[in-house]
Amino acid sequence: MARQAQIRLLFFLFIGSPLHLIAQGLVASENAVEKWGVYEITLSGPTAGNPFTEVWLTAEFSSGDKRVKTTGFYDGDGVYKIRFMPEATGQWSYRTSSNVNALRGKTGSFTCRAPSATNHGPVGVRNTYHFQYANGKPYYPFGTTAYAWTHQPEPLQEQTLTTLKNASFNKIRMCVFPKTYSYVEEEPALFAYEEKGRTKRPNGSTKYEWDFTRFNPAFFRHLEKRITDLAKLNIEADLIIFHPYDKGRWGFDSMGMKNDLFYIKYLVARLSAYQNVWWSMANEFDFIKTKPREAWDVYSKAVVEADPYHHLCSIHNGTEYYDNWKPYFTHVSIQNGSTVEDFGRAVLLRDAYRKPVIYDEVCYEGNLPQRWGRLSPEEMTETFWQGVIAGTYVTHGETYRTPGDTIFWAEGGRFHGQSPARIGFLRNLLEQQPGPVELADPWKDHQTCQSDSAHYLIYLGKQMPSEWVFSLPKKGAPPTGAVFKAELIDTWNMTITPVSDTFRLGEAKDYRVYDEGFRKIRLPAKPYQAIRLTQIK
Amino acid sequence: MARQAQIRLLFFLFIGSPLHLIAQGLVASENAVEKWGVYEITLSGPTAGNPFTEVWLTAEFSSGDKRVKTTGFYDGDGVYKIRFMPEATGQWSYRTSSNVNALRGKTGSFTCRAPSATNHGPVGVRNTYHFQYANGKPYYPFGTTAYAWTHQPEPLQEQTLTTLKNASFNKIRMCVFPKTYSYVEEEPALFAYEEKGRTKRPNGSTKYEWDFTRFNPAFFRHLEKRITDLAKLNIEADLIIFHPYDKGRWGFDSMGMKNDLFYIKYLVARLSAYQNVWWSMANEFDFIKTKPREAWDVYSKAVVEADPYHHLCSIHNGTEYYDNWKPYFTHVSIQNGSTVEDFGRAVLLRDAYRKPVIYDEVCYEGNLPQRWGRLSPEEMTETFWQGVIAGTYVTHGETYRTPGDTIFWAEGGRFHGQSPARIGFLRNLLEQQPGPVELADPWKDHQTCQSDSAHYLIYLGKQMPSEWVFSLPKKGAPPTGAVFKAELIDTWNMTITPVSDTFRLGEAKDYRVYDEGFRKIRLPAKPYQAIRLTQIK
Repeated sequence: MARQAQIRLLFFLFIGSPLHLIAQGLVASENAVEKWGVYEITLSGPTAGNPFTEVWLTAEFSSGDKRVKTTGFYDGDGVYKIRFMPEATGQWSYRTSSNVNALRGKTGSFTCRAPSATNHGPVGVRNTYHFQYANGKPYYPFGTTAYAWTHQPEPLQEQTLTTLKNASFNKIRMCVFPKTYSYVEEEPALFAYEEKGRTKRPNGSTKYEWDFTRFNPAFFRHLEKRITDLAKLNIEADLIIFHPYDKGRWGFDSMGMKNDLFYIKYLVARLSAYQNVWWSMANEFDFIKTKPREAWDVYSKAVVEADPYHHLCSIHNGTEYYDNWKPYFTHVSIQNGSTVEDFGRAVLLRDAYRKPVIYDEVCYEGNLPQRWGRLSPEEMTETFWQGVIAGTYVTHGETYRTPGDTIFWAEGGRFHGQSPARIGFLRNLLEQQPGPVELADPWKDHQTCQSDSAHYLIYLGKQMPSEWVFSLPKKGAPPTGAVFKAELIDTWNMTITPVSDTFRLGEAKDYRVYDEGFRKIRLPAKPYQAIRLTQIK
Repeated sequence: MARQAQIRLLFFLFIGSPLHLIAQGLVASENAVEKWGVYEITLSGPTAGNPFTEVWLTAEFSSGDKRVKTTGFYDGDGVYKIRFMPEATGQWSYRTSSNVNALRGKTGSFTCRAPSATNHGPVGVRNTYHFQYANGKPYYPFGTTAYAWTHQPEPLQEQTLTTLKNASFNKIRMCVFPKTYSYVEEEPALFAYEEKGRTKRPNGSTKYEWDFTRFNPAFFRHLEKRITDLAKLNIEADLIIFHPYDKGRWGFDSMGMKNDLFYIKYLVARLSAYQNVWWSMANEFDFIKTKPREAWDVYSKAVVEADPYHHLCSIHNGTEYYDNWKPYFTHVSIQNGSTVEDFGRAVLLRDAYRKPVIYDEVCYEGNLPQRWGRLSPEEMTETFWQGVIAGTYVTHGETYRTPGDTIFWAEGGRFHGQSPARIGFLRNLLEQQPGPVELADPWKDHQTCQSDSAHYLIYLGKQMPSEWVFSLPKKGAPPTGAVFKAELIDTWNMTITPVSDTFRLGEAKDYRVYDEGFRKIRLPAKPYQAIRLTQIK
């Protein structure tokens, strides 16, 4: 049976560093795939009628006592595909099911090999509030935003990828559907649906008529290519399934529930085997006036039930939060800049939801007249520090309107801002910690976080004290006598300066423990300073 | 049939002001009760065996097409009671059901009269985030705390009531069961259960053995008297059903689920007809190590299903929040002092839970060594302002350890603190507003709240600017040309000083609207100032 199926294998071969990651199609004879790679089965089937609606195709993959059911999809021109992301090494076999003879009962087997060094697998939740790759490596989201980058001209998309390659972001918020909004009005080259016809509106714009029962495979193949491009850069694709920025222009925000669910099923069948896909049910769900609040339960459930790998899934708000505690959502994706504007705020929502919180929209570094698009680079950088020290995460966006250039937040292109470098600096600092950080005393001290009793970061924000008296919350501190070295961190100038003194913990009294000689650190009277403490053992 | 039943009616007769409220038992011939009063049926029944476990008794009350099912209870000495709180005026009738002949099929009827002027009915939720009485009057919770006041010697209980009568609190957090903790160790006079025996522990303390299948009606009658005493003062009894402060002394925190549910059923049958009862499932639920997290769903459901009137119900946390979005909970009862310590925090949880939030434990004004018990009076007052301007509510507690006196937070007694007067001052200010207040621009301006476009409060907290430039968020402001008068409020000294200037709104630009002449208000360079703006129409 396997010989009847035309099999094409995709897998990610990781050599040395992420920058050398190569995606490669292998011939069927080398019937193998990396763990967490994409194994793809290609079958020939009917073209008559409407294959999208009339043909169903599934496969069961098995290895030992493991069984995974996946859904195939029609890729146009009589081609049907099934994609599978094996989560265990070893020998796998499969058998297809279908309502069509040509696609039914196809079987085959292949080997799942150990992942290469830079393939860490999909990201999941770790210790309630944090993330890690499937291989156990911590993942700290440091995302950026380019809602419609895949709908821009090809050279611009390539430029975006080059920009991302040279920056430090490891997640990007991006929409499946094109976006029409201030500063982004281009007509995309590809659409998700087959066009039934078009007319001109009185204002000269094109009014399309779509066949919502027939997808445009070329559109999805393009999206998949871009997701693979991101994977090569070790960037997670936080894929926004619905958004409100359509307003009757194309009609993708108002297809009706039946078409919405048909789209979800097709999208998830095509994309769930890609390890770096995250599902974002919506951007600003409450601004999509065509879908009532109750609908999001139906859509979220549809996504989660169709995805055999349980990719991360969230829903992003406009001004009202959705019910983020619902079981579909692995984490919380919040819009609210005020949460990371000052101390003591970011931690609050985390404890309410008991899930990882990503402040995915906190206003953007830029120069727009709208206040959501005019953070200074210092303010944008500050949001990341405020989020990180509270054990939460923050997403960047850039809204500089520069003559003759694009605006990254919507279209991609180049960064003009000064925060990306500082965000990268913070990411490095965090990745040097032995694990995720938490506020050591979250109800009283909003500046001191720790990853364990030997590793602290203290962030001072806009405050400019001339000195910092060495002191730690008693809770979580090591015993009396422990010795720490200290480094002064300038979060804006990205410098790390060792402090010559070391510090030895005195006896804990009340709720704090001090250096036994009440030693302090001189500070440079500049904002955005931090202190890193590391126990000397 | 009605003549066979010995009927006793309790109702609250409200004359003039809350201070003159009188509770009165009426003879059966005057067969009437106020709306939201307590109608009580008393029946004679068996004394043999264990009437608590062996006899069940219910009644259906009806009036027109309204039907309410209530559960009766055994009150000892062959006396069985059914209590009912009618929520509609008019003629009501009832019929009892029971597994015992003597209690079965009793019928009767009575009149429910209009409530008197100070009887506003039970408190419910209003507009997602706020509260109101059943008659539509707004209710703004300004609570205090006296966990074990009903377990103290009688004269002390009377002193507590006198203190409350002369203060401005309209809610009190109190436990059903006695409390053993630092500063509160007295043995209560009454216990909820029948004693089977007692022994002395090696340390001299008494070890009781309880019959958890037999309640002590005298204990509950006492509790009911105190709840009625509070009702006379228009104070809501926020009744804590379980708490962790037992630690093996009496064993009421570790009775096991069967006994816990039996207790809930009895408690709710006795108390749900009292209009001023709120259910607080637990204090610091997560500190009650004898009950797993899942148990709280069972208990909360049991309370809500047994209560025909749907009294307010919440669950209070220690360090971890419970799932406050669950449908049993009408509002959120949070412990976390940091939420109301500074601007921009209190509003965050409200938006997450989409329910009214009461910060029911935010540390206490006092002089204890523990940091939860050593807020300054200024800090305690500040928490109320921080909560109120964010559209949330805060609860007071006092922990002064004064030689020869009690500590109000646990035992009741007298207030020694300075915050209660200031809290009363704020309550008056809020009640003078036309409705609940909300932050006018919650993501950017955490100082300006409004009840409508004509009524603003601006709170400056610890900041001491020498002037306040008249400016309002554009959103929610009245049109250009609107004229406001202003008053300077000293929240600590409790003064309201009219500002001689009036202010006329200029054209709104960007996100703020200013007085057309950019007029400002001189401030006295003291902390804790506020400004009240009222549109002159």
